[in-house]
Amino acid sequence: MPERIDALIHPRWTLAVEPRVEVAEGMSVALDKGRILAMLPTADARRRFSPDTSHERPAHVLMPGLINAHCHAGMTLLRGYADDLPLKAWLTERIWPAEARLVTPEFVADGSRLAAAEMLLGGTTCFSDMYYFPDVVAEVARESGLRAVVGMIALEFPTPWARDVDEYIAKGLEVHDRYRADALITTTFAPHAPYSTSDGTLARIRRLADELDVPIHTHVHETAAEIEEAVAATGQRPLERLERLGLVTPALVGVHATELKPREIEKLAQARANIVHCPRSNMKLASGACPVAALLEAGINVALGTDGAASNNRLDMWSEMQLAALLGKHVARTATAVPAATALQMATINAARALNLDAETGSLAPGKAADAICVELSGPGQVPMLNVISQLVYSASRDLVTDVWVAGQHLVADRALTRVDMDALERSARSWAERVMSA
Amino acid sequence: MPERIDALIHPRWTLAVEPRVEVAEGMSVALDKGRILAMLPTADARRRFSPDTSHERPAHVLMPGLINAHCHAGMTLLRGYADDLPLKAWLTERIWPAEARLVTPEFVADGSRLAAAEMLLGGTTCFSDMYYFPDVVAEVARESGLRAVVGMIALEFPTPWARDVDEYIAKGLEVHDRYRADALITTTFAPHAPYSTSDGTLARIRRLADELDVPIHTHVHETAAEIEEAVAATGQRPLERLERLGLVTPALVGVHATELKPREIEKLAQARANIVHCPRSNMKLASGACPVAALLEAGINVALGTDGAASNNRLDMWSEMQLAALLGKHVARTATAVPAATALQMATINAARALNLDAETGSLAPGKAADAICVELSGPGQVPMLNVISQLVYSASRDLVTDVWVAGQHLVADRALTRVDMDALERSARSWAERVMSA
Repeated sequence: MPERIDALIHPRWTLAVEPRVEVAEGMSVALDKGRILAMLPTADARRRFSPDTSHERPAHVLMPGLINAHCHAGMTLLRGYADDLPLKAWLTERIWPAEARLVTPEFVADGSRLAAAEMLLGGTTCFSDMYYFPDVVAEVARESGLRAVVGMIALEFPTPWARDVDEYIAKGLEVHDRYRADALITTTFAPHAPYSTSDGTLARIRRLADELDVPIHTHVHETAAEIEEAVAATGQRPLERLERLGLVTPALVGVHATELKPREIEKLAQARANIVHCPRSNMKLASGACPVAALLEAGINVALGTDGAASNNRLDMWSEMQLAALLGKHVARTATAVPAATALQMATINAARALNLDAETGSLAPGKAADAICVELSGPGQVPMLNVISQLVYSASRDLVTDVWVAGQHLVADRALTRVDMDALERSARSWAERVMSA
Repeated sequence: MPERIDALIHPRWTLAVEPRVEVAEGMSVALDKGRILAMLPTADARRRFSPDTSHERPAHVLMPGLINAHCHAGMTLLRGYADDLPLKAWLTERIWPAEARLVTPEFVADGSRLAAAEMLLGGTTCFSDMYYFPDVVAEVARESGLRAVVGMIALEFPTPWARDVDEYIAKGLEVHDRYRADALITTTFAPHAPYSTSDGTLARIRRLADELDVPIHTHVHETAAEIEEAVAATGQRPLERLERLGLVTPALVGVHATELKPREIEKLAQARANIVHCPRSNMKLASGACPVAALLEAGINVALGTDGAASNNRLDMWSEMQLAALLGKHVARTATAVPAATALQMATINAARALNLDAETGSLAPGKAADAICVELSGPGQVPMLNVISQLVYSASRDLVTDVWVAGQHLVADRALTRVDMDALERSARSWAERVMSA
């Protein structure tokens, strides 16, 4: 008697990302109660299970959903607002003044809704966010069905979200408490950057993060200028300062890391800290490039992030995987650096590890949450099919994503969002465009 | 009485790329007899013309078709055959042996057909090719409707196309003569690279190119190793050697140019030579990066190319525009380098100039050929719309191309090829995949 389950997916290929990146043909995947129940040969699956829904995907790869390890979802309404400018002018002359005028819970909600739609359609099933109003980001994530890691942001100057560090931390902890039992929402502490947070704030966050067992998500060494200014002001490089304050631990999720000395790489490796590489944003702002091949060789866990749409200008993990491989080779000066398989791990299991979610997501394995996507490898850009792994990283792009499941919920079907009113979303973005441009 | 014409297109935006990159709203474009007849306000267009077909494109940009200034279309059947390898091993251990086994007129025809389909769907209306059997490439281009600049390839060693330089040149000139009166096919001389062609061959090609007024399309300074080897063997850098042989002129279309000394940049500028930048291929092979910002500042005409699908692995000018801007900023260490508008020119009018086709294509202007595309800027990744030019380069991608016209022929409509049997094309690619992998 076949076993009744929620869904059975029959792709042509199934992509494993751990322990090795490998492709299998002729395997099916059974989903039930939001989890992966089994992965087995298709003929066995058809005999053993009686699924409520069955998905035939004969030209498709089934793979783990992509995880965007660094994002500012609310900033999506500033896409294209300030391009072709260096980081400092971009931030101080354009983005911060615009945010001061525009950022409200409504702005964050509408921006995050748009971000969630863009990410889901492109096969991202989980994102780690750092922005104001993390309570709103969490609500929007719940409404969209996306898995989210919400940053309890903190910095020394007032914003529409909080007046001072006490309030940032208190309001952050409220969000943490509210979602403590939520299956899809977790948190990080998110001190904005070493240059915008004091020793006291960082030490306090370190203690709280230890108590609550929560990662610390922070920008670190984004540009050479930032490091020079820190050395001039404090006598220490930012990473040295984080180390002195006890923040360089397995809980650290350091974003960007474009400038690292060999000793710093060694220290990050010894401490088992995590780095998030944002290649598109770094290139667009000419911030330098994370030495990814060197970090990987040292054994450091490197994940990928889009950064915000104001600097990227897309929330597209396919572009990040491609650029991680391409820029990684360029920077290392060898074409064997950051092979395609590694880029796939950086966008899936490595990110899950950094975010303390690898028991739950980041790969396809029985018992893990059903966070999975189907990618259709057909059309003239996708043939001949000589190497599925190369094809995914070097030739594919987000428009090939046909299906997305998060915790078993079928959020994208036949390349369309199942829960989102796209017309309302585009109307909202149009109305914000006017406000952004006239502000 | 309205004037009868072939077609009238009513986009939301029209993109000019010369004399400046600018976006206009509310303009329509009239096509007749393969040419752009007029560009005028939509209300005037509706009054003045009675078109056979009318195209309402209310969320679209109408822009010049993209021009791929360097491609090896036949190699598309080797997509994904040899990835994550450095140029020399990639070429000598994988690609050349595979080509020796596989390259026949049939291989080139089927690879070029696939390339033409991929390029057309992605909004490329013209490509400049360098490969064996240019007669076959030209035939496939005619069949597909694409505008093509076919390379009369020459090198010192035998290939399935020719035994020796005499035969390369004689067979190339036959192709040149055959298409002399063709509206869509032109030619270049294509000596493969300085390291694969002798002084005598290069001097002979220089004389022929002068006589026939045809550009000289060649790889130059692709890697540092290639330059070192040339210096060891000849005492000269390849560009010095080309200069000595009289090839550094406005007819030169030099591809890659990842390693250039200031004096070489100056010389290229003085000579009004053209450079084709292939950012994705250079990054994937870790060949270094063309100093695009420095070339542009010196006044050099820089175009973009995909290179072949064996090193890229996509024939996608949207990816090249994005990377030209992103890598250009990274290399120049300033985010103001290679702005979005410049990337658009590199993929259109600059390429037309390099290929001696700027009187015919490369921009939308009355009298030029109707080589145009529509790009639909909607969906969650394309809003809010704060800056159309940024959006095209940093957020858009080839899947947004809805329509492609080449010389007025509507070759892509509603995102589908109008002349190609896609099933037959995919069947052919599948059958080649088996032959490639078992060869």
